[in-house]
Amino acid sequence: MSLSAVLTRIDDQLPDAIDRLMGLLRIPSISTDPAYAEPCQDAADWLVNDLQHIGIDAEKRTTPGHPMVVGHIDGPGPHLLFYGHYDVQPVDPLELWHTDPFDPKLEDTSKGQVIRGRGSSDDKGQLMTFVEACRAYKEANGALPCRITFFFEGEEESGSPSLIPFMKENAEELSADIALICDTSMVAPGVPSIASQLRGMLKDEFTIHGPRIDLHSGHYGGPGLNPLREMSRIIASFHDDQGRVAVDGFYEGVHEVPDELLRQWESCGFNEADYLNSVGYTQPHGEQGYSTLVQQWARPTLEINGIWGGYQGAGSKTVIPAEAHCKLTCRLVGDMDPDDLRSKIRAHVDAQLATDARVTWDSDLEGAPAAVMNVGRPEFEKARQALSDEWNREAVFCGMGGSIPIAGYFKEILGLDAMLIGFANEDDAIHSPNEKYNVESFHKGIRSWARVLDALAG
Amino acid sequence: MSLSAVLTRIDDQLPDAIDRLMGLLRIPSISTDPAYAEPCQDAADWLVNDLQHIGIDAEKRTTPGHPMVVGHIDGPGPHLLFYGHYDVQPVDPLELWHTDPFDPKLEDTSKGQVIRGRGSSDDKGQLMTFVEACRAYKEANGALPCRITFFFEGEEESGSPSLIPFMKENAEELSADIALICDTSMVAPGVPSIASQLRGMLKDEFTIHGPRIDLHSGHYGGPGLNPLREMSRIIASFHDDQGRVAVDGFYEGVHEVPDELLRQWESCGFNEADYLNSVGYTQPHGEQGYSTLVQQWARPTLEINGIWGGYQGAGSKTVIPAEAHCKLTCRLVGDMDPDDLRSKIRAHVDAQLATDARVTWDSDLEGAPAAVMNVGRPEFEKARQALSDEWNREAVFCGMGGSIPIAGYFKEILGLDAMLIGFANEDDAIHSPNEKYNVESFHKGIRSWARVLDALAG
Repeated sequence: MSLSAVLTRIDDQLPDAIDRLMGLLRIPSISTDPAYAEPCQDAADWLVNDLQHIGIDAEKRTTPGHPMVVGHIDGPGPHLLFYGHYDVQPVDPLELWHTDPFDPKLEDTSKGQVIRGRGSSDDKGQLMTFVEACRAYKEANGALPCRITFFFEGEEESGSPSLIPFMKENAEELSADIALICDTSMVAPGVPSIASQLRGMLKDEFTIHGPRIDLHSGHYGGPGLNPLREMSRIIASFHDDQGRVAVDGFYEGVHEVPDELLRQWESCGFNEADYLNSVGYTQPHGEQGYSTLVQQWARPTLEINGIWGGYQGAGSKTVIPAEAHCKLTCRLVGDMDPDDLRSKIRAHVDAQLATDARVTWDSDLEGAPAAVMNVGRPEFEKARQALSDEWNREAVFCGMGGSIPIAGYFKEILGLDAMLIGFANEDDAIHSPNEKYNVESFHKGIRSWARVLDALAG
Repeated sequence: MSLSAVLTRIDDQLPDAIDRLMGLLRIPSISTDPAYAEPCQDAADWLVNDLQHIGIDAEKRTTPGHPMVVGHIDGPGPHLLFYGHYDVQPVDPLELWHTDPFDPKLEDTSKGQVIRGRGSSDDKGQLMTFVEACRAYKEANGALPCRITFFFEGEEESGSPSLIPFMKENAEELSADIALICDTSMVAPGVPSIASQLRGMLKDEFTIHGPRIDLHSGHYGGPGLNPLREMSRIIASFHDDQGRVAVDGFYEGVHEVPDELLRQWESCGFNEADYLNSVGYTQPHGEQGYSTLVQQWARPTLEINGIWGGYQGAGSKTVIPAEAHCKLTCRLVGDMDPDDLRSKIRAHVDAQLATDARVTWDSDLEGAPAAVMNVGRPEFEKARQALSDEWNREAVFCGMGGSIPIAGYFKEILGLDAMLIGFANEDDAIHSPNEKYNVESFHKGIRSWARVLDALAG
């Protein structure tokens, strides 16, 4: 099979590929809003139809929520499972969009041409890089170089409630040699990136109880224990003055980044000043002694995401409230165990509690361990080489500060290692108004996948 | 003039006095709700009419809000200004009332007979103790022993917006030798109490700003400064581990309670265990080294009344918010200066702020210094003796943890010392469902005022 013919075909057919993507972007498949259930069906139908056009045996599969799309096509090389999602985030605040979010446009910007519209980057544009690579490969060579299973969900932006049950029920059909996921960013513009580690997640929520009822701060101010102060003290006790989490045993299972990986990261093109200044920071605020990148990718956090209690209206109310509330999440790395960590955090709070204060916990919030990709597998080096060839720049194994639970599910439910390759940029405004995807990301993304398919088959 | 004839008349006429109070209680004069503007007029009319029946030259006086009632009657003794308020708190949650809040009832309880209904204690029942004493005095003796100005407002429960302008415009008409206020509680059941000191108040509100926009805790968790953590740390820094406020210079102007007053307070009948246990505390939580009563009456506080920031809905959101908010109030004692204190607190927060954090303050919240009554005036000892005679129990000069700004206004605008005598009990449920006033409070309250009038005239 000829790769150069595929790449030529991709270049020649780019306008058609963009047109097709525009078609998918016009479907307002907002998964979290029940009013958009029909567009979610439409987006799934669109994908089934498009895959069938390529010659892929695809169908829409119902779930209690939005449908899955599953497709199969044979090929001589290894069996790949490709995952993406066709649903998108809501578009509010609509008034901040400069164009209709569901009437996508090509736009010339100072940083090059972009495709503007909801889902252009997350994840319709990204998933179509893979589909278009397959189309070009098939059209140029009459067949695909690998056996491929396509697996698209429509609930990624609304918590994926149907995903695990569907994977369990269809484990055999979804089996493969390795999973490919296209839902991540490049570490810097033009730097091809394979995410080699993702942080895990622990969610928890607690309420500090003080007096039996809300009290008048004249009658009880002084002798009265105030849950707002109590909670603030406890939150403050979570960290020491070096930015380290002060919960006993918190760092159990955390490993230092190996020197070699650290050197790779240092030369990966990450721009620390841009990253910090763009949101108003002049310095990193995490654990002292670690670089910004290591703080973000390879160190765990205990973060407070929401607090509330007492009077929050206009003016003033002289109240000592009965309760104070706190939502927290931890980002996990290495071998940190979410359940064990939850116990440690709860024990820390218990130990901090003053006499007459009481704590209760929300028991419904889940956790997931960190994921370290199996970069020792030969597919990773093959893909890295293919990406480097396409982008004329050494591709990097990068960390990611966020959590993508699907990688863990593939391992846990299907026994599959996952390889995360994405072409998004930090400034794509995913989840925000005026989302865009660089035409360069789309074009070179398609070419990248063609090269990766070729390399994996070889 | 004969006091014993007055007291006999009060005893004989008690059922009529209760009937009259019931009439006033039936008028739903909720000042904060515009829907009840007419009942507020009705309550003022009711009082004007009742005062006129006694022979007092009374009239309703318009304001931009609810009307004032002002009345005058001459007498040989000193000139007294009596203040009370005819407006009441809203009644919600209505479903927690066992009776119609505006259909007052006499009820037998394990602690004696009570008058149940909104305003029965705060302040209609209390102000009528004075009116009924005047009525009985006049009817028994043909005249009152002192010259009296009656001054009732209808906006006390809604911030008294018309009070200061009205006092300034009518300062001459409202002049007197001393002001009497009946809007306070007894320090313990059956212990007649004159409030000799009230704490002052300082209100403030701040916002901690961190990143320019809300951030994703995956992308920025670690390097990102979190305003929720920042605010918690600052709130925690307000107090040391002995319960003392750790703001530089906070205790300037605070005086220790003189030993003699302390001894009086210790024997005043205050039940510390009841006070703490009734709201779920097993111990006082204020400054170590001070008794519960001193913490409540004579020590300043810095209290947090409300906090909020980040995500507060169901489930979880992985956000590092751009802002965190805090409402605080201080209770002031001695010579603490609200403006000076505000500067000190703001300086404390400034000094605590981390790099890249910023604070803004609400500038619209007022303050008022503590009030110490001029208990050296002979009227105080006369009143104390009269109350002791009535209740067969040494009357006490007690402190109060709350703030009653009217006492300060009398001093500031009219140059009047105020004497606060009230017969409410802590369990009267003022501002709450099922408000009540003990018949004993009403009956002995009326008798108390008759004795006080007699003593002040002598």
